[in-house]
Amino acid sequence: MIIDGRAIAEDIYTELGTFFAGRGARLGLLVVGVDAVIGSFVRIKTRGAQRLGIETLRIDLPADATTEDVISRTHKLAGETDAIIVQLPLPKQIDVNAVLASIPAQRDVDALHPELVEWVNPTVSEGKRIVDAPVALAVMEILKRANVEVSGKRAVVVGAGRLVGVPTAELLKKNGADVSMFTLQEGSIEDLKTADVIVSGAGKPGLIKPEHIKKGVALIDAGASEQGGVIMGDADPSCAEIASVFTPVPGGVGPVAVAMIFRNLRTLIELEDVH
Amino acid sequence: MIIDGRAIAEDIYTELGTFFAGRGARLGLLVVGVDAVIGSFVRIKTRGAQRLGIETLRIDLPADATTEDVISRTHKLAGETDAIIVQLPLPKQIDVNAVLASIPAQRDVDALHPELVEWVNPTVSEGKRIVDAPVALAVMEILKRANVEVSGKRAVVVGAGRLVGVPTAELLKKNGADVSMFTLQEGSIEDLKTADVIVSGAGKPGLIKPEHIKKGVALIDAGASEQGGVIMGDADPSCAEIASVFTPVPGGVGPVAVAMIFRNLRTLIELEDVH
Repeated sequence: MIIDGRAIAEDIYTELGTFFAGRGARLGLLVVGVDAVIGSFVRIKTRGAQRLGIETLRIDLPADATTEDVISRTHKLAGETDAIIVQLPLPKQIDVNAVLASIPAQRDVDALHPELVEWVNPTVSEGKRIVDAPVALAVMEILKRANVEVSGKRAVVVGAGRLVGVPTAELLKKNGADVSMFTLQEGSIEDLKTADVIVSGAGKPGLIKPEHIKKGVALIDAGASEQGGVIMGDADPSCAEIASVFTPVPGGVGPVAVAMIFRNLRTLIELEDVH
Repeated sequence: MIIDGRAIAEDIYTELGTFFAGRGARLGLLVVGVDAVIGSFVRIKTRGAQRLGIETLRIDLPADATTEDVISRTHKLAGETDAIIVQLPLPKQIDVNAVLASIPAQRDVDALHPELVEWVNPTVSEGKRIVDAPVALAVMEILKRANVEVSGKRAVVVGAGRLVGVPTAELLKKNGADVSMFTLQEGSIEDLKTADVIVSGAGKPGLIKPEHIKKGVALIDAGASEQGGVIMGDADPSCAEIASVFTPVPGGVGPVAVAMIFRNLRTLIELEDVH
């Protein structure tokens, strides 16, 4: 089964439409430097916001901004919006952990507080977390809709990035899967052969080939890298013939993950309304 | 001579680089609704700002925003930046004149206050104007660099829009040209044959053909319309063989006009510094 991520996203936007209608919700976007791929990701989020009637407040800082510049804009956006997104990656001179740590939990729609994504030290302070990472939520939503039960299954997560690998591994564990990682430091490509569920967020086109995987695996490809203007996933598209569940790139995990940002935004606003 | 607008823009960015370096200047951008062409214009301005180290603060309001929503965001941006751009066109339900009138003159980098662009009633209150419209300034800059003296010359301006036609006609007059307009209401395509200088901002691809113009005319094409993802000017490219000065689209007036936004921004900041 090839997953239609755009159709799932449509479902979620429909579900969220009533909540956001007339609410005047605001989303903050912080971007540092110009980059075509980053720009297109921000545009996709702005378009999602527009669909739901959500205003966006976006700051673009020059590429040579300092960590202090970025943190001060994070505070400004946090004070004026319901939730904020700091678009990653940031330029090298920026202390990304300091920036992400400056996002208040009740505004952290991407769940990027550094303590949440310390894979080497996974004792997460629960006070720092209100929502889960949108990509991890998208992976779980896709698996649920495809009737893939993860509890007790072998799952291999490819890549230990803060956007995909780490939060997805954690959420799979929480749901009872037996999770191992395949990264530059640990595991190997042979591990994929044992997996019932593979989630990939390496950003390496063609990394996963049909000969690496087991017949009937659920292969969720959350990798996205650009080559000559084309966005490509980590898995060779021919893996779709062997997998029982397969997400294409583009049109698989991506649109669902963007929709999950707005489901998280609803959660943060509901929480704020209660307090 | 075919004008290289990008090279002229480069010159202007170099001229402005020192002024903006380390100054922490801010430009506000207000966008209502999603539109691919509008989006690309805003992106070009953001990229220009980034080149000069200028921070941009951008608000995207949903397409069903009210005039009051837009005016309140204009005020917000005016309070937090050195200058603001309200990206036109605005959706039909918005009172565009009310919005543009709400931009304080010392923030009006596009010179769009409605009293500035009343062609039918050109008694402009000078207090409303600090800078001239970027497109009109770009036209004059191009003519100057091509050594075209406009004083005493016959100029025809095509289209009476607030972004191109009206401010350019005014600036040409101020510089001593004998200006007439060719619009739906006045003038005719035959008038072009008499012109020493033509400035076109109609947004109609192929409107001006070689047979309409006089040998040696300076033809400045400030029209830009999108057809199937391609940006086209008002003049047929073959007019370049008859004109003494010709601006292509893209790469002619457009990049120079964007650079002029930042020259205007410098003017507004210098004025603020004096007060």
